[in-house]
Amino acid sequence: MKVEGRNAVYELLKTDKEIDKVLVRKDLKDDASKRLINVIKSNKVKIQLVDKYVIDKESSSDRNQGFIAYVSDYKYFELEDILKDCENKDGFIVILSEIYDPHNLGSIIRVCECAGVDGLIIGKDRCASITDTVMRISEGALNHLKVCKVTNINTTIEKIQQEGFWVYGAELGGESIYKANLKGKICIVIGGEDTGVKRLTKTKCDGIVSIPMQGKVNSLNASVACGIVVFEVLRQRNF
Amino acid sequence: MKVEGRNAVYELLKTDKEIDKVLVRKDLKDDASKRLINVIKSNKVKIQLVDKYVIDKESSSDRNQGFIAYVSDYKYFELEDILKDCENKDGFIVILSEIYDPHNLGSIIRVCECAGVDGLIIGKDRCASITDTVMRISEGALNHLKVCKVTNINTTIEKIQQEGFWVYGAELGGESIYKANLKGKICIVIGGEDTGVKRLTKTKCDGIVSIPMQGKVNSLNASVACGIVVFEVLRQRNF
Repeated sequence: MKVEGRNAVYELLKTDKEIDKVLVRKDLKDDASKRLINVIKSNKVKIQLVDKYVIDKESSSDRNQGFIAYVSDYKYFELEDILKDCENKDGFIVILSEIYDPHNLGSIIRVCECAGVDGLIIGKDRCASITDTVMRISEGALNHLKVCKVTNINTTIEKIQQEGFWVYGAELGGESIYKANLKGKICIVIGGEDTGVKRLTKTKCDGIVSIPMQGKVNSLNASVACGIVVFEVLRQRNF
Repeated sequence: MKVEGRNAVYELLKTDKEIDKVLVRKDLKDDASKRLINVIKSNKVKIQLVDKYVIDKESSSDRNQGFIAYVSDYKYFELEDILKDCENKDGFIVILSEIYDPHNLGSIIRVCECAGVDGLIIGKDRCASITDTVMRISEGALNHLKVCKVTNINTTIEKIQQEGFWVYGAELGGESIYKANLKGKICIVIGGEDTGVKRLTKTKCDGIVSIPMQGKVNSLNASVACGIVVFEVLRQRNF
């Protein structure tokens, strides 16, 4: 969905809607435009500076004033929706604590759909959101996977544990995923691209599991690591 | 490495060196420049049109004539180098038949390094090459993994089989990776992002193995799928 014009974009920034990016005409020099550009930047929304003809081509009205914001249409689920689905079976939940790259998020959504995960939980402040880019990369998998956004990963872990789940952080230096018992109600916490699982979050987990590696660099892409761990859970359950 | 000037870039295109991209000044109108641009295009090398000041900033001489090519410094290994490493042990080789996306190739290189794969073989015409982008994405893993480029994947499979390897194509509709015996000298063929493993290549394989999935869309990113299969080989060998 496109939102056009200075005021409309300004109002949009006050909501909690997911903004993919804002196209901004590159030759704007007036004070009102500069102020808005600063507000967009302070909201950490991506700005793409473009020529006037690009904006006018994209615009569906003549009132864009040099600003077009792209808003995601995704509607998140509630944690309760996911927990309800898991009531009478061995549920399987994945939590992302800090995944910033939309390509990684899209790829992880595909992993979770393929593995029949019941729900994906992402952190509100420290994760990429489900923008149109993520939707495109996830190639339809989002239609079959419940994604929920939470403010606090750590209290969410506690709630999930109260429902009978074992929560494992996936991180270097833990028990081998091939030796850990990953059957039953399981929740896996995947850490950030660079930072791994946060220290406090780790203390909330029931255990830490790791992919045993044999190389010298031993650095896997976050979505690949997620794929290996999630499919190991699947293997232990079904094969 | 940068190669500058019309003639130098033209000569470079005749070699089999990996060219990342060619920066071309966007306002060139003379016939010699237009001819070279056509040659670059017919070699399917990426062209990036830029302003004069960009070219001049990048240039290390004043003889660029509006053309700067970026060449990869990677030196490929020979198939024999890889096979020799596998002589007295259960070697592990991965073949990529058609991976076009440099991000996927970089990510697969990281997977192979982490799994202690002995060598990665890529097809000459139907795969991304090891450009500077791939080197960057692979985050140092290339220093510890032998990559070899071959003209014909199918005859390469035959050579590898003669050395005692079992060659498995990873593709939908095969035996579950959890049931297949992936011990011993193993070579896994990973198919393309969209096309999977080619029909003729499949007939050369000793078997087809698949990741059992539980979703509705069931489409994994190529590097994620590679990670799951390669680490299952590792699990069967070591755990």
